[in-house]
Amino acid sequence: MVNVISVETAAEIIAEKLPGWGTETLSLPTLGGGILAEPIRTDRPYPPVERVMMDGIALAWDTYQSGQRVFPVLGTVAPGEPPPSLTDTRCCFEVMTGAALPLGCELVIPYENLEIKNATAHVIRPEPWQPYQFVHRCGSDAPAGKIILSAGAKLNSPVWGILASLGQIRVAVKRRPRTQIIATGNELVPPEEQAPQAYQLRLSNPYALAAALQRQGYNRVSITHLRDEPRALADHYRQASKDYDLLIYCGGVSKGKFDYLPQMWREQGVQQYIHEVAQRPGKPFWFGIDHQHQTAVFGLPGNPLSSLICLHRYLLDGPTFYARLASPFRFDQPLTYFLPVKLEVTTAAELIVHPRPPQNSGDFLALAETDGFVELPAEKSYFEAGECYRYFPWS
Amino acid sequence: MVNVISVETAAEIIAEKLPGWGTETLSLPTLGGGILAEPIRTDRPYPPVERVMMDGIALAWDTYQSGQRVFPVLGTVAPGEPPPSLTDTRCCFEVMTGAALPLGCELVIPYENLEIKNATAHVIRPEPWQPYQFVHRCGSDAPAGKIILSAGAKLNSPVWGILASLGQIRVAVKRRPRTQIIATGNELVPPEEQAPQAYQLRLSNPYALAAALQRQGYNRVSITHLRDEPRALADHYRQASKDYDLLIYCGGVSKGKFDYLPQMWREQGVQQYIHEVAQRPGKPFWFGIDHQHQTAVFGLPGNPLSSLICLHRYLLDGPTFYARLASPFRFDQPLTYFLPVKLEVTTAAELIVHPRPPQNSGDFLALAETDGFVELPAEKSYFEAGECYRYFPWS
Repeated sequence: MVNVISVETAAEIIAEKLPGWGTETLSLPTLGGGILAEPIRTDRPYPPVERVMMDGIALAWDTYQSGQRVFPVLGTVAPGEPPPSLTDTRCCFEVMTGAALPLGCELVIPYENLEIKNATAHVIRPEPWQPYQFVHRCGSDAPAGKIILSAGAKLNSPVWGILASLGQIRVAVKRRPRTQIIATGNELVPPEEQAPQAYQLRLSNPYALAAALQRQGYNRVSITHLRDEPRALADHYRQASKDYDLLIYCGGVSKGKFDYLPQMWREQGVQQYIHEVAQRPGKPFWFGIDHQHQTAVFGLPGNPLSSLICLHRYLLDGPTFYARLASPFRFDQPLTYFLPVKLEVTTAAELIVHPRPPQNSGDFLALAETDGFVELPAEKSYFEAGECYRYFPWS
Repeated sequence: MVNVISVETAAEIIAEKLPGWGTETLSLPTLGGGILAEPIRTDRPYPPVERVMMDGIALAWDTYQSGQRVFPVLGTVAPGEPPPSLTDTRCCFEVMTGAALPLGCELVIPYENLEIKNATAHVIRPEPWQPYQFVHRCGSDAPAGKIILSAGAKLNSPVWGILASLGQIRVAVKRRPRTQIIATGNELVPPEEQAPQAYQLRLSNPYALAAALQRQGYNRVSITHLRDEPRALADHYRQASKDYDLLIYCGGVSKGKFDYLPQMWREQGVQQYIHEVAQRPGKPFWFGIDHQHQTAVFGLPGNPLSSLICLHRYLLDGPTFYARLASPFRFDQPLTYFLPVKLEVTTAAELIVHPRPPQNSGDFLALAETDGFVELPAEKSYFEAGECYRYFPWS
């Protein structure tokens, strides 16, 4: 007797049982978009010098305070040059934005307040400047050794920039599992088949799942196809459980005559944690762990909509959003309903979604006009326009 | 005299002048996440057969209507098998979900209403079934030749699945330009440099920009670094303008003594369309086209925050969002202000953003705690909590 569990219970079981898969070290140019797995600290103070923030001249504060307004220019300091010392405090240096402040200088006066003739700077528009006013003080953004990025940070574009600026060209990231997507079914032919029989379908599910995984940084995903033959399925499993950390099957988990997978997995020693979930689509959803090989096994339904929804709901770790229904929707059964939707972005900063229910479980083409799906809880059967539910954008 | 233009005018000029870069053909496994450049049609009706949607038996409607309730089973039809003909209308076939409906059958009765013994099916729980009730009718999702995906569709996971199911393993996508990111500045050392001088900075901008471009499907992005030397910059440009469609410079576009780029570009025949934009950060923002080589040239400011914001605002084509300010913000100058923010997702389906203004133009580390930026228009100087503005998430 199979125990049908709720979506929430299924998600908890998976979160608890799924192995961690550890970390791996990647280098900056091929870092991808995964998750940082170590805290990152500053290697030195930032900025590392007293950094000039305006083009102009740098001079000693005391000299300026004494009333002097004309300063011989000793030279020019550009970014990337070691800061010279102001040995004669009656003089100044020209300084460029980004340069290190010359030693012995505390005041920067911008060009717009100056006239420079014959290597001499004249202050023509004095203002009530303060010491270090146009100086980005050494260490003012962060001292050396400060944690700037925490483990768990998403590797987006600013993070790449921060890692490079800190000299962290090799960092530990959350290791993505070696993954194989296995489509089962005798009706499937390769996608390049140009003239399938009417009773044949091209292999398509695994490409949709692979695209979603790749976008989340899964960098070792392979695809295969197996026929519904118990022995071939078992032979494949024995090798695959050694070669992969994560096996995602599509099809063969229902209770049809040719749905051999759940029995095969049990025979191969996979501990079953989930077989059916109170959800539509995707009720026959199987999850187990092969503790001997530390391999996680997902059995997703064969229909493309179900498998893609289950992958987003139970495996991918995208951001959590909530969206507001633009029109009411009814679903009378005591199941969580995953409703495909079209997103409307409003200038009022709201995420509004328009229901695009599929005509039936096989209607995958209709997904072309959707942006994701919302999760409608099992406890209700009528969902009013204006109510807000959890929204999963397609990866 | 340089003409300072508004953010809106700058965006219009870029949209108008930027070349299209054409299309290229990519194959399914390496399709990436770009933009489809051709409409995609169904190659045949979908579903391509009368497809069974329940495990059970299939039989002739007229026979069932005549009152017969016991049917000898002629055989079983599984998915992927050619549909047999029901030559004896007093009999039935067992059919599996996904199988083609046997010819001569119009009614499917699910297992739960049946008892099957000795190759004979007994209807034990009759219901008021209709012809084709559990049949996904041939062509009901789409006829052959229907446009399913339009040019401009984003290549997300459902789209990958649809392309595979239609046998479209090679498709035209928007060609991404051959791109080089060129950081200029004598203060820059490679990111792998472990002990830079205090007055040196590691090359970091180009990695942030490359990450953002890669996420949007730019698959040919290289990075280089040049010193602030007019002749070296010109020599590099002459070759790069032939090798690349898009050159993105960071630094050297301001009006400092060592900002040689705008003059060099003009000397090399690049037509300048934008030099300064009324925005902060990023006022010195340069854009031009080398019409001889059909090369687009962006000159972004050298500071990392400015260059990343300008890339998102003017070049990337991410989704448009609006977000609501969680707290007020003041900016008194007549410039568009790009304000880094932290996103808060609420169960009320709102995008709320918390201002995280940088302490100064060089404070890049603070971006670690931001999710993107909002665009605050130049016409206002006080922005109230609760007001909504355009929001750009970091790529």
